[in-house]
Amino acid sequence: MRLHSADLKNISIRDGFWSKHVDLVRSAIIPYQWEAMNDRIPDAESSHCLENFRIAAGRTKGEFYGAVFQDTDVAKWLEAVGFSLACYPDAELEKTADEVIDLIAEAQCDDGYINTYFTIKEPKKRWTDLCEGHELYTAGHLMEAAVAYYQGTGKRKFLDCMCRFADLICDTFGTEEGKIHGYPGHEEVEIGLIKLADATGNRKYLEQAKYFVDARGVGENYFMKEMSRPDYKMIFPEFADYTPAYSQSHLPVREQTTAEGHAVRAVYLYCAMADIAGAYQDEALLRACETLWNNIVEKRMYLTGGIGSSGILERFTVDYDLPNEYNYSESCASIGLALFGLRMNQIMRDGKYMDVVERALYNTVLAGIALDGKSFFYVNPLEVWPPACMEGTSKRHVKPVRQKWFGVACCPPNIARTLASLGQYIYGVDEENRALYVNLFISNESTIELGEAQAAVRLTTTYPEEASFTLEIKSLPEEGMDVFLRVPDFAENYSVTVAGTEQPAQPENGYVRVHADAPCTILVSFAMPAKFVYANPQVRADSGKVAIVRGPLVYCLEEADNGENLPAVYVDTAAGLEEKKSPLFGGIVTVTARGKRIAPQSWKGGLYGTEKPELTDCTLTAIPYPYWSNRGQGEMLVWIKELNH
Amino acid sequence: MRLHSADLKNISIRDGFWSKHVDLVRSAIIPYQWEAMNDRIPDAESSHCLENFRIAAGRTKGEFYGAVFQDTDVAKWLEAVGFSLACYPDAELEKTADEVIDLIAEAQCDDGYINTYFTIKEPKKRWTDLCEGHELYTAGHLMEAAVAYYQGTGKRKFLDCMCRFADLICDTFGTEEGKIHGYPGHEEVEIGLIKLADATGNRKYLEQAKYFVDARGVGENYFMKEMSRPDYKMIFPEFADYTPAYSQSHLPVREQTTAEGHAVRAVYLYCAMADIAGAYQDEALLRACETLWNNIVEKRMYLTGGIGSSGILERFTVDYDLPNEYNYSESCASIGLALFGLRMNQIMRDGKYMDVVERALYNTVLAGIALDGKSFFYVNPLEVWPPACMEGTSKRHVKPVRQKWFGVACCPPNIARTLASLGQYIYGVDEENRALYVNLFISNESTIELGEAQAAVRLTTTYPEEASFTLEIKSLPEEGMDVFLRVPDFAENYSVTVAGTEQPAQPENGYVRVHADAPCTILVSFAMPAKFVYANPQVRADSGKVAIVRGPLVYCLEEADNGENLPAVYVDTAAGLEEKKSPLFGGIVTVTARGKRIAPQSWKGGLYGTEKPELTDCTLTAIPYPYWSNRGQGEMLVWIKELNH
Repeated sequence: MRLHSADLKNISIRDGFWSKHVDLVRSAIIPYQWEAMNDRIPDAESSHCLENFRIAAGRTKGEFYGAVFQDTDVAKWLEAVGFSLACYPDAELEKTADEVIDLIAEAQCDDGYINTYFTIKEPKKRWTDLCEGHELYTAGHLMEAAVAYYQGTGKRKFLDCMCRFADLICDTFGTEEGKIHGYPGHEEVEIGLIKLADATGNRKYLEQAKYFVDARGVGENYFMKEMSRPDYKMIFPEFADYTPAYSQSHLPVREQTTAEGHAVRAVYLYCAMADIAGAYQDEALLRACETLWNNIVEKRMYLTGGIGSSGILERFTVDYDLPNEYNYSESCASIGLALFGLRMNQIMRDGKYMDVVERALYNTVLAGIALDGKSFFYVNPLEVWPPACMEGTSKRHVKPVRQKWFGVACCPPNIARTLASLGQYIYGVDEENRALYVNLFISNESTIELGEAQAAVRLTTTYPEEASFTLEIKSLPEEGMDVFLRVPDFAENYSVTVAGTEQPAQPENGYVRVHADAPCTILVSFAMPAKFVYANPQVRADSGKVAIVRGPLVYCLEEADNGENLPAVYVDTAAGLEEKKSPLFGGIVTVTARGKRIAPQSWKGGLYGTEKPELTDCTLTAIPYPYWSNRGQGEMLVWIKELNH
Repeated sequence: MRLHSADLKNISIRDGFWSKHVDLVRSAIIPYQWEAMNDRIPDAESSHCLENFRIAAGRTKGEFYGAVFQDTDVAKWLEAVGFSLACYPDAELEKTADEVIDLIAEAQCDDGYINTYFTIKEPKKRWTDLCEGHELYTAGHLMEAAVAYYQGTGKRKFLDCMCRFADLICDTFGTEEGKIHGYPGHEEVEIGLIKLADATGNRKYLEQAKYFVDARGVGENYFMKEMSRPDYKMIFPEFADYTPAYSQSHLPVREQTTAEGHAVRAVYLYCAMADIAGAYQDEALLRACETLWNNIVEKRMYLTGGIGSSGILERFTVDYDLPNEYNYSESCASIGLALFGLRMNQIMRDGKYMDVVERALYNTVLAGIALDGKSFFYVNPLEVWPPACMEGTSKRHVKPVRQKWFGVACCPPNIARTLASLGQYIYGVDEENRALYVNLFISNESTIELGEAQAAVRLTTTYPEEASFTLEIKSLPEEGMDVFLRVPDFAENYSVTVAGTEQPAQPENGYVRVHADAPCTILVSFAMPAKFVYANPQVRADSGKVAIVRGPLVYCLEEADNGENLPAVYVDTAAGLEEKKSPLFGGIVTVTARGKRIAPQSWKGGLYGTEKPELTDCTLTAIPYPYWSNRGQGEMLVWIKELNH
C-alpha cells in the first residue's frame, strides 16, 4: 500500500523557518492575488481572469483577455483558499470564494463544459486544439481546486460542478469509437481526475486519467495530426517548429527514459504516471517513473532543485546542460518536481525522494516569492548580472528582481497553493501498519489517523538553523506505532534518542525506524556543517567552481554583501567555511569564506590585454538562496570559482 | 582629403593564406550560390530569390517566397560577381550576370521602383512599413551591386536602373513638404546612395544619403508612428516589443554614444555616418563615429572581431556583456565592422582601425565560410558544445557545423562579396600627396594611381605564418612617393629596411613612414609570438580565463585535438606556448600549451558531490579560430580556464 499525506486539517504548522512564509498565504498572498485577479494592483500586468468568467457567465459583456489558460489563475487561487480554510477558518474569505464558485458554476455550459476562452472566443472549436488549447489543463486545475475546497470546507458545489465537467471529459475522450482519441497538450487533467476519483470514490475518473496516460505518444502523434489540419491556427507562435517531445508525446510513456520538453508538462505527467502506477500496481509504469526521476536528479537538475534549463520554451535540453545565468528553472517546474517526488516517496518509501523534494521546496520554490509575499520569480537563475538582463535579448526572461504579477501568471498562485499545502509533505502515513514517516523537519502539532486509531504528535525544531528536532508522541494507538525518521543525504552523525535512551541509527532506504509503545519523546540530532559542493565535471557551466550548501539550503553570494562583479571572485576551499547567526530576513545562518578577487584597479584598461590581472584577498559572505533579491537589485552568484585549481 | 582604396581592377592577389579562400569566390562560391539561388542545392533551405524576380517581371506566375529582403541575395551575388569580374574576366559568368540584370530591369516598375516582395505581394503598401519592410535596405544592396558591376565590367545598364530607382527615392523621401519624412528601418541605402554618387558623380545621391543620416532619431520616432497606425501589420513577430534603439533611431545620430540595437544595422549606419562626415567635413558627425567606434572596440566586441552578443535579435546588449556559448556575433556584423573600420582609417589615417578590421576579417569573417566554400556560419560562438545546441532552446541559433544555406541567407553572399573585394582593405591611397598606406599584409601585385602618375608595387609575404613582408616598388612617380607601413598593435621589434638599409621605425598613428625616390625594396619584419590574452575583468564571461592569439589570429581548442569536455581544461600560462608548423588546412601554425584537466574518472558519479575532482596533466593544441569545425562536429573553445589563479 502506498503512503498518504496526513490530512491538512489535522496539521498545524508553527515553525520558525516556514511560518513566516506560510502565514503570508492568508495574510498577504491570497488577498494580494485577489486584487491582482481583479486588476487592482497598480503597474502590474493585467489579469482579467475573473472578468473572463463574468463575461462567460453572461453577467457582463466584453472580450476575453489573457492566455488560453487564464482560468487556471482562479483555480489555483481557489485551491490555495481551500487549503488555507482547512487549517484557518475565515468566514469572509469563504464567502468571497463561494461567490467565485457561484460565478464558475454560472459560466459552466449546460453539458458541463467550463473554459472561458473557448466559451467566449471560440465556442465551435472546443477540443479541436488539444496541443495548444489548454482546455484539459485548465480542467485539471479546476478539479484540483474543487477537491481542495471540498476538503477544506466540506462544501460540494464546486466539486459537483467539476464532476459534471469530468463526466463530459469521460464521455468525450477514450479509445471507444466516436470518442476523441487524443490527450492533453499540457498535462494536468490527469492529476485533477485522480484527485476527483479519490475525493468522490468514483473510479471512472481514475480510469479516465489512466486512459490519458496510456494514450500519450502511442501511434501517430495526435498533435501533429491536429496541426496538419488545413484550418489549424497556431495559438503560440513559438510552437512553429513543434516537436512531440515538447509535450512528452514522442514515445509511449512506459518507453520514455529521459525527461524531455516543457518541464512543467513533464513533471505533471510523471505525477500522474506515479499515481496510476501506484493505483494499478503497474510495474512497467513505475519503472518508467524511476528512470525518469533518475534522469532528472542525476543529470538535469540544478543544485537548487530547479529544472528546465532552456531560457527559451521553459524546457529540458540535454544531460548536464545546466547554464547558470540564462536558464529558466521555472518556479512551477520545481513545484511539479516536489509533487512527483512526494508521490515516488509514498510509493517507494525511500527517503531519497524527499531529499530532492526538500531541496526544491527550500530553494527554488521559496525563492519564487518575496519575503513580503507580494512579488514573484517565474525564472530562477543561479547567477545574475542585472544590467545584462535586458528586454529583447538572450537574457530577457531573467529578472533580477521579483515581479508584481505576470501576463502568464502561473507561478504566483502555484507558489501560494504549495505553501498553503506544505503540510502534505511533512508526514507519510501507513494506516494499515500504523506507521508514521517523518519527512520534513517543520514544527507542527498534528493528529494522525492510523486506521481505527489516532496518534497525536508534536514536532519541535529550529531547523534548518539547527540540525535537530524533537518528536513528542502524545498519544498513539494501543497496539503501538512505528516511526520512520528521515535521514537526509547531507546528515552526519545522525543520532536518535527515544525516551531518554539513545537508539542505534542504521538508516534503511533513508529512514531510521523507531517503535513506540507508549507516549514518548524522540530526540533527533545530526550535523550539517556548511560544505563546498562540486558538480559532475560533465556540467560544463560549473567546472572549476564550487557551491556552498548547509543542510537543505543552497547559499549564494549577493552584491549587497560582496560588492559587484561576483564572477571575478575566487573562493579558497582549503580555508574552510564559517557559520554565523544573522538577524537578516528574520534570522538566518550566513556562511563566510576566504577568497580572492580580481582587482579591478590592476587592469590597465581596454577590452583585452596581455598583462595578467592581480588578485587581492577578500572575505565572502553567503546567504541562503531563497532570500536573494530581497535587498534591492544586485548581482547574485551560486557557483563560485575555486582558487588553487 | 580622405584616403581611398586602390582600384580592385589593379590589384592582383596571390597569397599563401588568402588565395585559397579568395579563389573560392569564383571557383566555388559564386557557382554554388547561383545554384542555391536557383534552389538546386539538395537538403538546403529554399531561396526562390530569382524566381521572385521572374514573377515580378511577369515571366512566370507564382507566389513570392522568402523574407521581405530576399532580393538582397541576388544583389550581393551580383556585387560579388562585379568584384570578381574586375580582376578575373569570365565571359560565361558575365553572360549569366547580364541575364540576371535583364531580369531585374524587367522587374523594375515604370517609376523606377524595384522590390519583388512589394511588387508581387503588397503593391499598394510601398513605403508604408519602413520599419520592417526593408525596401530601402534592399535598394541599397542593389545600388552597391550596380556600382560594383559597373566598375567591374564597364556596363551601365544595371547602374542606370539603379539611378532611376535612386531618383525615385530622392523624390519620395526628404524634409520637403509632400515627401515622406522617414528613414530606413535597416540602414544600407545610405551606403548604396553614396557609392552611386561616387560612381556617377551625381551629388544628389550623396545629399539623399545625408538626409537619411540626419533624419534618423530626430523628433517623434518615425517607426513608432508607423506602428501606431490602425492598419499596421507586424511582419516580424519578434518585433512585438520594438524599441527605437533596435534601429538606432532612439537619438539623433550625432548624440549617440553607445552601439545599440541590431548589430548589422548599427555598423551599416556608422559606415554611412563616416562617409558623410568625410564628405561634408562634419566634425560633430565624425566625433560621433569615433565615440561609437570606441564603445564597440573597448566594451562590446569579441576578441575575434565579433559584435552583437545577444542570441536573440542579433543585437548589442550592454558594455562587457560578451557570453561565449550563446552569443550571436553574426558574420554580416563583422563584415560591417570591417567596412566601418576601413572608412574610419581612410578618414583618420590611423592604423588602429585596421587592427580591428584585420582581426574581424581573419577571424569571424573567415570562420563564416568552410574551407571548400560550400557551407557557412551565420552565428559565430566562441565556445561550442554540440549536444546542447538544440532546436527550440536557448542555444538554438548556435550551429556546431556550417550550414549549406539559410532561409535568411544574408551571410553567405555577404562573405562572398567581402572576399571578392578583399583588395580594398590592403592599401590606402592619398593621390594628392602621392602616399600609399600598406594596411594588410597580403601578397599582391598592384598598380596604384597616384594623381597623374602611377606606382607599380609587389607585396610578398607568408604572413600570418611569418611576421615579415617585402614591398617591392617597381616604379613610382617622378616626384617620389611616401609609403606608410602599418605597425599592428601586436607587433614587436618592428624593423624596416629600405634598399638594404635599416630605417628607424618610430610609428606615428600606427604607421612607419618611408620615403621612396626610386624603385626599391622595403623589407619589414617584426615578431608576433603566440601570447596569452586576458579580457577586462568586467567581462564576466571571461574572468579567470585566457585566450591564445598569434598575430591577427585568435586560436581555439577543438575536440579533434584535445578530446571532449573542453571547459574542464586548464592552461598553465607560466609554462608558455610553443608554435609548430602543421600541414592542416593547407598549412597553419598550431600552438601547444601545457595544462591540466579535470579527470572524469576521479568523479564518483552523481550530479553533485563534496569530493574535489582531481586534475591530470595534459597538453593542449590550439588551431586558428577561422578553421574550426572543418573536421566534423565537435567541441570548440576560445577562452580557456587559467591554472594557478
